Amino acid sequence: MADYARLLRVAKGDEPADVVIHNGTLLNVLTREEHPATVGICEDTIAYVTDPQDAHCEGRRIVDASGMWLAPGLIDSHMHIESTHATPEHLANAILPRGVTTIAQDPHEMANVLGVEGVDYMRRAARNLPLRVLTFVPTCVPAVPGLETSGAEFGAREVEALLDDPHTIGLAEVMDYWGVIRQSPRITQIVQVGRRRGVILTGHIRGVGGRDLNAYLAAGIDSDHELLNAEGIWTRSRLGMTVELPCQVHADAIPAAVEAWRQRGYLGDVVFVTDDVPPHELQREGHLDRAVRRAIALGMAPVDALRASTLVPARRLRRPDLGAIAPGRRADLLVIADLAAFALHMTIASGKIIAQDGKMTQPAERQCQPPKGALASVHLKARTREDFTLRSSAPQVQARIIAQRGRALEVHTTAVVGGSVAWHQHPEWALAAVLHRHGHNSNCGMALLSGSGLQRGAIATTYAHDSHNLVVLGRDEADMAAAANALIDCGGGYVAACDGQVQALVALPVAGLLAEQPVERLAEGFERFEQAAGRLGVAHNPIRLLTSLPLPVVPSYRLTDCGLVDVEQQALLPAFE
Amino acid sequence: MADYARLLRVAKGDEPADVVIHNGTLLNVLTREEHPATVGICEDTIAYVTDPQDAHCEGRRIVDASGMWLAPGLIDSHMHIESTHATPEHLANAILPRGVTTIAQDPHEMANVLGVEGVDYMRRAARNLPLRVLTFVPTCVPAVPGLETSGAEFGAREVEALLDDPHTIGLAEVMDYWGVIRQSPRITQIVQVGRRRGVILTGHIRGVGGRDLNAYLAAGIDSDHELLNAEGIWTRSRLGMTVELPCQVHADAIPAAVEAWRQRGYLGDVVFVTDDVPPHELQREGHLDRAVRRAIALGMAPVDALRASTLVPARRLRRPDLGAIAPGRRADLLVIADLAAFALHMTIASGKIIAQDGKMTQPAERQCQPPKGALASVHLKARTREDFTLRSSAPQVQARIIAQRGRALEVHTTAVVGGSVAWHQHPEWALAAVLHRHGHNSNCGMALLSGSGLQRGAIATTYAHDSHNLVVLGRDEADMAAAANALIDCGGGYVAACDGQVQALVALPVAGLLAEQPVERLAEGFERFEQAAGRLGVAHNPIRLLTSLPLPVVPSYRLTDCGLVDVEQQALLPAFE
Repeated sequence: MADYARLLRVAKGDEPADVVIHNGTLLNVLTREEHPATVGICEDTIAYVTDPQDAHCEGRRIVDASGMWLAPGLIDSHMHIESTHATPEHLANAILPRGVTTIAQDPHEMANVLGVEGVDYMRRAARNLPLRVLTFVPTCVPAVPGLETSGAEFGAREVEALLDDPHTIGLAEVMDYWGVIRQSPRITQIVQVGRRRGVILTGHIRGVGGRDLNAYLAAGIDSDHELLNAEGIWTRSRLGMTVELPCQVHADAIPAAVEAWRQRGYLGDVVFVTDDVPPHELQREGHLDRAVRRAIALGMAPVDALRASTLVPARRLRRPDLGAIAPGRRADLLVIADLAAFALHMTIASGKIIAQDGKMTQPAERQCQPPKGALASVHLKARTREDFTLRSSAPQVQARIIAQRGRALEVHTTAVVGGSVAWHQHPEWALAAVLHRHGHNSNCGMALLSGSGLQRGAIATTYAHDSHNLVVLGRDEADMAAAANALIDCGGGYVAACDGQVQALVALPVAGLLAEQPVERLAEGFERFEQAAGRLGVAHNPIRLLTSLPLPVVPSYRLTDCGLVDVEQQALLPAFE
Repeated sequence: MADYARLLRVAKGDEPADVVIHNGTLLNVLTREEHPATVGICEDTIAYVTDPQDAHCEGRRIVDASGMWLAPGLIDSHMHIESTHATPEHLANAILPRGVTTIAQDPHEMANVLGVEGVDYMRRAARNLPLRVLTFVPTCVPAVPGLETSGAEFGAREVEALLDDPHTIGLAEVMDYWGVIRQSPRITQIVQVGRRRGVILTGHIRGVGGRDLNAYLAAGIDSDHELLNAEGIWTRSRLGMTVELPCQVHADAIPAAVEAWRQRGYLGDVVFVTDDVPPHELQREGHLDRAVRRAIALGMAPVDALRASTLVPARRLRRPDLGAIAPGRRADLLVIADLAAFALHMTIASGKIIAQDGKMTQPAERQCQPPKGALASVHLKARTREDFTLRSSAPQVQARIIAQRGRALEVHTTAVVGGSVAWHQHPEWALAAVLHRHGHNSNCGMALLSGSGLQRGAIATTYAHDSHNLVVLGRDEADMAAAANALIDCGGGYVAACDGQVQALVALPVAGLLAEQPVERLAEGFERFEQAAGRLGVAHNPIRLLTSLPLPVVPSYRLTDCGLVDVEQQALLPAFE
């Protein structure tokens, strides 16, 4: 915090500011208007916002913002650092130049692998970065107990212990929404811990409305980031929900936001978030800046697009010191060279010019080492083709096939030859396997999947929501074993294999989730993996295909290490009827 | 708090609600729209908000709201209970039927008389009422040390001790704004206590803009309730200030609010407050309901008028559980029979039907006795006409005359006859005296005042901002003594005297500020006092005349027990040049 006495002297004009940003056009998210302004900064705090004609604006450093715009630093109120696969310091270096100065992380991927130690690592690794990182405590570790096994399990005790840390700010997305609504003991106890402490309770609820949604809100969980349509924005806002609209490439709610904004001329308390952004998308399309850019391109008033990415999330995070350019608030602000393109000249974070013209002025540094357990997190022995052979003693089976990317389940009569289910003859099918990799059991869930596009070889990852077991999808059992073994050897990551050979490999040696590498380097690896998967036939988003397959809180049919899951019923189904 | 398990069952529709308000038109302050709704309440909490067609709306009590409107309970984020002169339980009985369900009090009148004990009394007297009373800690006791002497002085230590009580929520209006801006030690230390604790810092700053206003905001004090014009609303909102607009009869900012609303079609984060409302105005015009009624009458969309009196103040008070009708929030809500007149059918507070058709269903009860010191708070001996004789040894004086209700200072040559200043010959003049009444000294500030209207007799009060000394205004020294003595005898209040006789007396025996009486009874007394003052010539607002005379934070010239104050210079001036 800035020295109080000096701050007031600078504000009053009795002492020069540290940085003066002179004569920009301020996008004022408080009043939803644009006006000329000169801003004076004292240490980490905004000291004054004044008319550019004001004569008392001396400063040690003067930034001429003539012809440019000023906006508060962007605030991402819901995101998982692990989705970028970069350790926090590398993420900071990637998103500060894009204007993101505060994020609220939910480290639940790391929690599912390493438990409390994982959350602790993510907090320590993110502390004292030039990027302000707030941390929510993961609540669904695993997402649905009994339907999957992860590396750790959180009950009320673990959550309570993590909330004791003053750097944690609330409960991360309570994804077990049926558990909340139907009052299953584990999640009910966790929610009650959060209620007792009066912290922010964040949600995740998909495809549920009416009185069930009322019950979820009555529990005090009053946000969600799963919505993609304009009418839903109003339906949920009416009930007091903070609607967090994701701006991912595969789940882009910005058009819905713009439609809702057009309907009323304002957007209410809607917030733009990133949730999950893989490194190559971050590199190509941007991070939360993508949401702003896209909303402006689709016709939203820039100041309202910024409001949804600054002031409203700051309020949601109960941080009155953030989200606006005003005296007394933290000096997180952006100098924008081209508003239509949302191209930044400068990012100032806590009063420091941290990035200029797309580059960090001083890169963020590693804050701590990963814990030992993170560097040996794939607890599996080498696999053979036998491990991926789907067996039955019957002459034929009624095989359940996960179709339409998990939205439907089909049943097909399939021959059994020599004890093996003869699924290869269906060109649209592939075999999916989810191997428990945390050393607690030897689970391997297997099921057939149609419509993946895969024609040959195999792809695999250790980053698969939310238990982060080893997911393998293949047309060939030997290639499945090769893919699995490549990841077992390197400590996790993404791989594509064919004809017994690795075609592309991204190593993520920190818990099988992250690499201590710059985002741009990770992005190249991910591009290579996607291209390799494309050559094997997966034309569209192989990453999403693998990572969402095991998530038993996304409708309607999923595969975990425990087997095939009926999400609506929250029950396991045998692979064969 | 409602039982969690039952709350969720009621929300879901598995169990009947305690109260169902069926088929009203909900004024939805979250989305700024009106829509049909049925609301279910479980204990003190809203369980659901649903479509009136919803079949699962059983309840132990059903309120048919067909043809009526539903709105959240009103929230007054800045008010002084003492201004109504009723003890908290009587205030609750007066304003709950008018729809006010939450107030944030600043008990600084009581603090100036009784110190920490006074604040403690106001908190205890307000706890467990059906009206939710939040308490800010007074910061300016007295408003400006050195320019007045009150019954107590607060430094950082007293403020810190009061903030230790979990029922206090922040610093009450920091009125010593020049002290903040110029960094005087006492107020700087107090502000820093609030900053360290991260509580809400509320302000009071009048007639100050530009860089001085920036300095005040940089200190973290980010609200004000002294503004009465539309342009100021935007100027201050732009700087991140929560603009609290008072709706008092003598300081009515609602027309400015409506003008600002018309300019933009929305009002931003503006809040309606009452600040000070005397009992007869409360009885005649209403409390915070007056603001809503007036804004609607002047053309503001009802939902936006309500938003400024519910959701926005709830946010300002950092109470996400208040301010909207939504599942999981406190069941504070109003059933409005006539929206244009803002006439209520019913007030529900914490789930209880507490008032119906203007009457309490069960009146609030006294929570505690006033402390002993409160019942003997006028520490003065009987006065004589000699005590009110303005003396000089010079043959004539250059008398300083407070004119234009304190906005100007005039100097007039005035004769001295037999050692007494012969001011009576000027028909426009009256003599003002402010007697220290707290037993710490024998101060008596005296000065001449023009334009009060007083033609004969005297009026006096022990309720005079903020030190609450005994203020007497008279045309006749004997009547001034009679007025003073009447208040000394009864423990304080308001009085009008003429020809040696008391014409009207309102006794306020609790600290010379409050009476344990219903507001309607107090209102009758105040009407009688005003009529009596009117007969003595004070045509316009004798209460305001007396109570604002000694306040050294209101421009430009004031009289305290220390003498004549130049507010801008924050200095004392002799009565004669």
